[in-house]
Amino acid sequence: MPTPAGTQMSREIAEQPEAITATLAGLRPLRADIARLARGRATIAFVARGSSDNAAIYGRYLLETHARRAAAMAAPSVATIYRAQVDLSDALVVSVSQSGATEEIVQTQAWARACGAATIAVTNDGDSPLAAAADIALVTEAGVEKAVPATKTYTTQLTAMAVLATALADDQTALDGELDRVPDEIAAVIERRTGIDAAVDRLASSRETVVSGRGLVLGTALELALKLEETCLRPVRGLSYADLRHGPIAIVDADVAALVVAAGDGPALPGLREVAADLAGRGATTIGVGGDRAFADRCALHVAGPDLSEPVAPLGLVVPGQLLVEALARRLGLDPDAPRGLNKVTQTD
Amino acid sequence: MPTPAGTQMSREIAEQPEAITATLAGLRPLRADIARLARGRATIAFVARGSSDNAAIYGRYLLETHARRAAAMAAPSVATIYRAQVDLSDALVVSVSQSGATEEIVQTQAWARACGAATIAVTNDGDSPLAAAADIALVTEAGVEKAVPATKTYTTQLTAMAVLATALADDQTALDGELDRVPDEIAAVIERRTGIDAAVDRLASSRETVVSGRGLVLGTALELALKLEETCLRPVRGLSYADLRHGPIAIVDADVAALVVAAGDGPALPGLREVAADLAGRGATTIGVGGDRAFADRCALHVAGPDLSEPVAPLGLVVPGQLLVEALARRLGLDPDAPRGLNKVTQTD
Repeated sequence: MPTPAGTQMSREIAEQPEAITATLAGLRPLRADIARLARGRATIAFVARGSSDNAAIYGRYLLETHARRAAAMAAPSVATIYRAQVDLSDALVVSVSQSGATEEIVQTQAWARACGAATIAVTNDGDSPLAAAADIALVTEAGVEKAVPATKTYTTQLTAMAVLATALADDQTALDGELDRVPDEIAAVIERRTGIDAAVDRLASSRETVVSGRGLVLGTALELALKLEETCLRPVRGLSYADLRHGPIAIVDADVAALVVAAGDGPALPGLREVAADLAGRGATTIGVGGDRAFADRCALHVAGPDLSEPVAPLGLVVPGQLLVEALARRLGLDPDAPRGLNKVTQTD
Repeated sequence: MPTPAGTQMSREIAEQPEAITATLAGLRPLRADIARLARGRATIAFVARGSSDNAAIYGRYLLETHARRAAAMAAPSVATIYRAQVDLSDALVVSVSQSGATEEIVQTQAWARACGAATIAVTNDGDSPLAAAADIALVTEAGVEKAVPATKTYTTQLTAMAVLATALADDQTALDGELDRVPDEIAAVIERRTGIDAAVDRLASSRETVVSGRGLVLGTALELALKLEETCLRPVRGLSYADLRHGPIAIVDADVAALVVAAGDGPALPGLREVAADLAGRGATTIGVGGDRAFADRCALHVAGPDLSEPVAPLGLVVPGQLLVEALARRLGLDPDAPRGLNKVTQTD
């Protein structure tokens, strides 16, 4: 088994336990402020792109399932392209951008304020334009991230999402014990690398890859798909298993490697077990990430996830995916730190 | 040039002008009821999957840009898997299902009612469980659709979306003149088939296909991608050009056929022209669908769309896509009426 290579990405993967610990310590004291800002606002809307969008998708599900607050993803083009004046006096808008400098996100937050929304910025740069213009800035403590693929900036965004959702729950501290376990669980996943090499072998020869999840771990599946695509330059689709069944499953056959991402418990797990078995039945090589024993048994290959309950699992569950991506890029002769054709900060309109 | 073949799908494509005319006539009188039901409800959330989801995405953008009402996509698993009790007393929930019998959608609508939402069902079956349980049923007049790929049920759903959004606008009749032109514009697209054959030739030899759009025509791009995938059994991604730039564009090269979908006018068109040029610059064969002359000039191949302004364009812009899909399936020796591995009604949990 290769030891983690000396790439910047692998170093930043290893820095996550510390970054999450620092982010939790920095953001937990802001819960009262967050709850005050959200008071009387019936909906929460997230503004984000790319990895930040995948983090926000977790935030959305956690807000709805744990805090029981209506949440959804905003459409930035309504602001930046159509400049529509929508009444958002009932909304809390949460904008997520690691740099805090992506023009599209900065503009959309400014639009939301002008439409009457309260605003929270989640960013890794407290001096950024996004942070400066928000009612509350949740500044993640990832430090400088040099590799293009987001790793520690992504998991600290997830940490901010967990703080945000718990701030709006009846019991703000109900998940704290589980959140405190995240850094050690991530360290254990990185130490063990269970199943990574066999999965890399299989993915290296894959013509077609799909990644599926559901609910709280959907964002993890989408993030793993995005990382595989941008870093390993393979066409990869990420989608919920409900969307997979609504059409794309028609193309699943023996040429497909199907990654299925699952937490070790929770109400989405039975359906994820079933979709893993269904994909295998269509001839795909199924690679399970996380889940429980019964889930692993339904997959041809299995990569171990963290031992974290579903509401918090996404903070650790992406880490075996990061290890997969980093190792696969090297196997394919690519530089995981600087994928072709991408910059660290993407500017979109 | 081949005349449209005798497939069920091609017949149903041709029935769309009549189906849309009937749907407009049936639904316009409900605008006052819709406006009354939505009064005092700050947000509108859509519940749907598959093609219905793509129709709802258009509804969401039209509500925000034309009616200036906050709208978003609901996450059905919050209802069906997590059974979370979210306060929706501020929301109007619109559930879209051609059969009105998809368990996931029926259950999610029931959950939304229990959470305090007002409910509208958009369905092709007025006797369906979804219609029966809604405060208002917007019943589309597509008639029986036999081919598995949704065509006339999809464009009549788009028609219902337009009626819904105009019902909540300050001036309910502002788009009526343009809506009345849709059936004839669709008939003209079907009659002319401009550019279809050359695009089919290119797509038949494509290893990798992406479809991109933005804003009001994003749903059209997603629907074209879904149809190409489920009917022609090719892996196809549909995504907004902002999301394309955030990672997936890294894999665009000379092996890729890139379809870009655009209305003939509107504020999204300059960006769509630019992304077409960018994709061509990376070596992809660009196939433009719709747009204006300057847009067509930036594409290697061009399929003509309807002459409809952007807010209404999606009702007709999907039609050249349907013609493409039907002809490509035949070219590939597949049966467009009965794609492998799919049923007409998809049941998800």
